[in-house]
Amino acid sequence: MSGMVTSVILAGGSGTRLWPLSRAGNPKFLHDFTGAGRSLLQATYDRLEGISLPDRVYVVTGASHFEMVSAQLPQVPIANILIEPSPRDSCAAIGLAAAVIAQRSPGAIVGVFSADHLIDDHASFAKAVKRAASAAEAGYLATIGIPANRPEIQYGYLKLGDVLQDGVRKVVEFKEKPSQDAALRYVESGTHLWNAGMFVFCTRAFLGELAQQQPGLHDGVLRIARMWDTPNQAAILAETWPTLPKISVDYAVMEAAAAAGRVATVLGEFGWTDIGDFHSLADSVSHDADSNVLIGQQEGLLVRDVKHSTVISSSDRAIVVLGLDNVIIVDTADAVLVCSSESAQEVKEAVQALRASGGERYI
Amino acid sequence: MSGMVTSVILAGGSGTRLWPLSRAGNPKFLHDFTGAGRSLLQATYDRLEGISLPDRVYVVTGASHFEMVSAQLPQVPIANILIEPSPRDSCAAIGLAAAVIAQRSPGAIVGVFSADHLIDDHASFAKAVKRAASAAEAGYLATIGIPANRPEIQYGYLKLGDVLQDGVRKVVEFKEKPSQDAALRYVESGTHLWNAGMFVFCTRAFLGELAQQQPGLHDGVLRIARMWDTPNQAAILAETWPTLPKISVDYAVMEAAAAAGRVATVLGEFGWTDIGDFHSLADSVSHDADSNVLIGQQEGLLVRDVKHSTVISSSDRAIVVLGLDNVIIVDTADAVLVCSSESAQEVKEAVQALRASGGERYI
Repeated sequence: MSGMVTSVILAGGSGTRLWPLSRAGNPKFLHDFTGAGRSLLQATYDRLEGISLPDRVYVVTGASHFEMVSAQLPQVPIANILIEPSPRDSCAAIGLAAAVIAQRSPGAIVGVFSADHLIDDHASFAKAVKRAASAAEAGYLATIGIPANRPEIQYGYLKLGDVLQDGVRKVVEFKEKPSQDAALRYVESGTHLWNAGMFVFCTRAFLGELAQQQPGLHDGVLRIARMWDTPNQAAILAETWPTLPKISVDYAVMEAAAAAGRVATVLGEFGWTDIGDFHSLADSVSHDADSNVLIGQQEGLLVRDVKHSTVISSSDRAIVVLGLDNVIIVDTADAVLVCSSESAQEVKEAVQALRASGGERYI
Repeated sequence: MSGMVTSVILAGGSGTRLWPLSRAGNPKFLHDFTGAGRSLLQATYDRLEGISLPDRVYVVTGASHFEMVSAQLPQVPIANILIEPSPRDSCAAIGLAAAVIAQRSPGAIVGVFSADHLIDDHASFAKAVKRAASAAEAGYLATIGIPANRPEIQYGYLKLGDVLQDGVRKVVEFKEKPSQDAALRYVESGTHLWNAGMFVFCTRAFLGELAQQQPGLHDGVLRIARMWDTPNQAAILAETWPTLPKISVDYAVMEAAAAAGRVATVLGEFGWTDIGDFHSLADSVSHDADSNVLIGQQEGLLVRDVKHSTVISSSDRAIVVLGLDNVIIVDTADAVLVCSSESAQEVKEAVQALRASGGERYI
């Protein structure tokens, strides 16, 4: 199977929940949050070794990020960096990639991965993707399921059905962003997994499902794909892209596909984190003896009597933190965030308010 | 009495308890902490209107601050800005000023004021100083006593004795920096006031007391004063200054003078704050509906679900603060402090640690 999957990395969204590190012009996937020396995007690419050959890796991203993406991933052919004229959520992005790949490489097995996940165990990850690819060859839209250890309402949930093959189970229900009650029920049931936001499918299966569930979106991406790699690419993209429904693939395709028995899942026990906000970021990296996470330059940083806190330094400024518990401090050259751990999920909204009150230049 | 007091403003010390606003090279008295448009030094000068004519105002400061001090106080004659070659605590500073003034203006009544106090009611302040001047004319070392509302161990305490004249009482004991137990006893007694760190005396009385209590220091400042305004000023200062005892006037002179019955006090009920640390600074300015104090530029500042907190912005950086209680955030161009209100008094020590660990350039 090695190298037989065509990978699509979704590198979209500005990630304002990680402001001020993540900016509209410098989104989170371009950053090295963990101090490992590679950006989230590069780490995502690195994980694909043994799954996809470099010329079988695609990236879908915004026009303003094209230059940085190609600079960070010099191994990826320029022609494989697909530019969205504007963000239209994940279904349009995946649909475009699937349609272009179907045209260039008929019969390809496609794996879709987000550029802002952290994964600990690469070997286990590769094994899971290969199992998912095998389910994809059998016609399923395959997902990776993560053990659900808390009632997270921002995730999708996969209800497990029969075993289809070694390590692959059918999904009898796909529920995106459940209520708090439902999420709690799912976690307690022991029969649900989180959807990791990764999809493996053969292009025909995905596009067939798309044609059924979202015929307008399906026709749009096929129309664009037919003109891809031709002089008309820009014109058709400019004309068609803005008309595509702005919807996530979870709602647009996966829920109904699961109800129709066409979704499978592979258990992924490789240490998975969706870097959604600073709280989840802090959870995913190692803590010191005081349960603090200190990321970035340490010169000029002084932390005393501080516990359960995160300090991210992304500038050469001095930072002195004294006598605090459960706070998050993120310092950059032109902006600083100070919030309680509990408020980490309010950052996105606060940044919108900052923008609305004339702080556009800080976004 | 108007204009008959010669005022000495003590503008020394780097105020690292107010780091990162106050720096070694840019100490607290040069800053406009309250957003009133005047630095602490300028506000101290402004309060002297009606007490001293401009050419009867002196400032004692360090060499590195001379330029800023003279720029901030253009009305003060250059010759009245006395430069200390190095900080040798308040007794040497006051002794030098008293000796120079005694020589230039024999028989002068001198008022000594700190450059880092805030005072609300200027008219009441002027009235208290004039009463103190009247006690000084009668030969007393006069102080201003502040109602003691908490057992503050960093202050000096005045035990009240007999009434000497209208609004002036004798001080039967002067206790600098008492123990916590003693401070509590003093506050509960109802017979003690805080010493406001202001002194009014005629030069002969002060220098006479100094000659008795600190003969070495007395002889040193007189030797320097004799060469002041001559070509030998710099040489004698360089030779003598470093030999002077480094001691505060409270310990060196006031405690023993009070025991000898030569100290008087005037009740000062004009709203007094010694800007010692950020906690006392926050206490001294007006709070918003959430009991927050926001000082400095407000553009790019967003504060949500925050209570009992202080945010001081001294840069054009964005600051977003979410979901916190009882925190102090001080942001400057090259450094940020985040601490609990309770930790405000630890800032000085933390800054020393920062310096020791290679952060000299931030001090």
